[in-house]
Amino acid sequence: MRGLLLVVSGPSGVGKGTLLNLLLSHRDDCVFSVSATTRPPRPGEEDKVHYYFLDGETFSQWVEEERFLEWNKVFDRFYGTPLEPVEEHLRAGKHVVLDVDVQGGVQVIDNRPDAVSVFVAPPDLATLRTRLTKRGTEPPDEIALRLLTAKSELKSMSRYQYLLVNDDLEETRAQLNAIIEAETCRISRMAASGQLPTFET
Amino acid sequence: MRGLLLVVSGPSGVGKGTLLNLLLSHRDDCVFSVSATTRPPRPGEEDKVHYYFLDGETFSQWVEEERFLEWNKVFDRFYGTPLEPVEEHLRAGKHVVLDVDVQGGVQVIDNRPDAVSVFVAPPDLATLRTRLTKRGTEPPDEIALRLLTAKSELKSMSRYQYLLVNDDLEETRAQLNAIIEAETCRISRMAASGQLPTFET
Repeated sequence: MRGLLLVVSGPSGVGKGTLLNLLLSHRDDCVFSVSATTRPPRPGEEDKVHYYFLDGETFSQWVEEERFLEWNKVFDRFYGTPLEPVEEHLRAGKHVVLDVDVQGGVQVIDNRPDAVSVFVAPPDLATLRTRLTKRGTEPPDEIALRLLTAKSELKSMSRYQYLLVNDDLEETRAQLNAIIEAETCRISRMAASGQLPTFET
Repeated sequence: MRGLLLVVSGPSGVGKGTLLNLLLSHRDDCVFSVSATTRPPRPGEEDKVHYYFLDGETFSQWVEEERFLEWNKVFDRFYGTPLEPVEEHLRAGKHVVLDVDVQGGVQVIDNRPDAVSVFVAPPDLATLRTRLTKRGTEPPDEIALRLLTAKSELKSMSRYQYLLVNDDLEETRAQLNAIIEAETCRISRMAASGQLPTFET
């Protein structure tokens, strides 16, 4: 059975990273997609494990050759999701989790009718503000900008299929898990991949 | 939150009744819809509990007044799903389970874009034959007819959204449960019932 392409987006501070790590620790049929980037590796980062580290020319060539599921520019760096490893995992029956921002998520949604798209939202903006402040890693200016970005991203929520309001982490994980289980039972999906049982005698 | 309208169909002998009873014993937010019929009550059957027992004239009037979600004739009796009690449950946040044959199921699917439709299939026809034979309640002729009906019903499978292959009852229940959990997270559903969070500050 072909795996699911899971696109998961949500504003910074919503707990998406924790949620996805928890999901993957419970399911060995799920894998993260590895992104490509033009930024240089940081100490300890390995090529093809943490990122595909590409120079600008190679990245540009991959774009030309349509080797990305989605790609975009964040500040002066390029980021993208290489298509080939995703397809390999899907063919092997693994569910591939794409942890992407709304910009990338909407690209995948537009290009891949088979994608299962999930938006992770905070219970409310006040909770998001509290979570960002508690992290203590960002200065107040940065927090204000992240909240503004969150508001902008929440406007794209309706482009996604599923909404998870991340109030209780374990409950949210159970819901994400249910989405995976339910989507594997979808008749249109089985039909599209030629896996609908025929019940011939 | 508005409840889900769950349409569940599947051939005789597939274990659908056992599955749905098991589901309802695990979830108190699910209720069976009560059908209407023109057949007389059997000993112990109560009006509005087991069936709405209607005379032919009343049934016909309800059809005229579009008070059925679906209805059809089986041999010389009429059966139908009264709309009003279903709507009451949905408004109260209950998931309403419609255990209907394919004829009725397809009517609901055609009329209600909000319906969640589930087809329960056997692992294969040989298993279905074994299950029907093991029951020991039907003569061989009847079993042959039921198998033929099953083959005919399986042709309508692709009209449904989800397929559950009932091999292991507990696994099938978990899948049906996952479908309910996932569908309550659907953004289109929340938007249609005005329940999509807005994240206003």
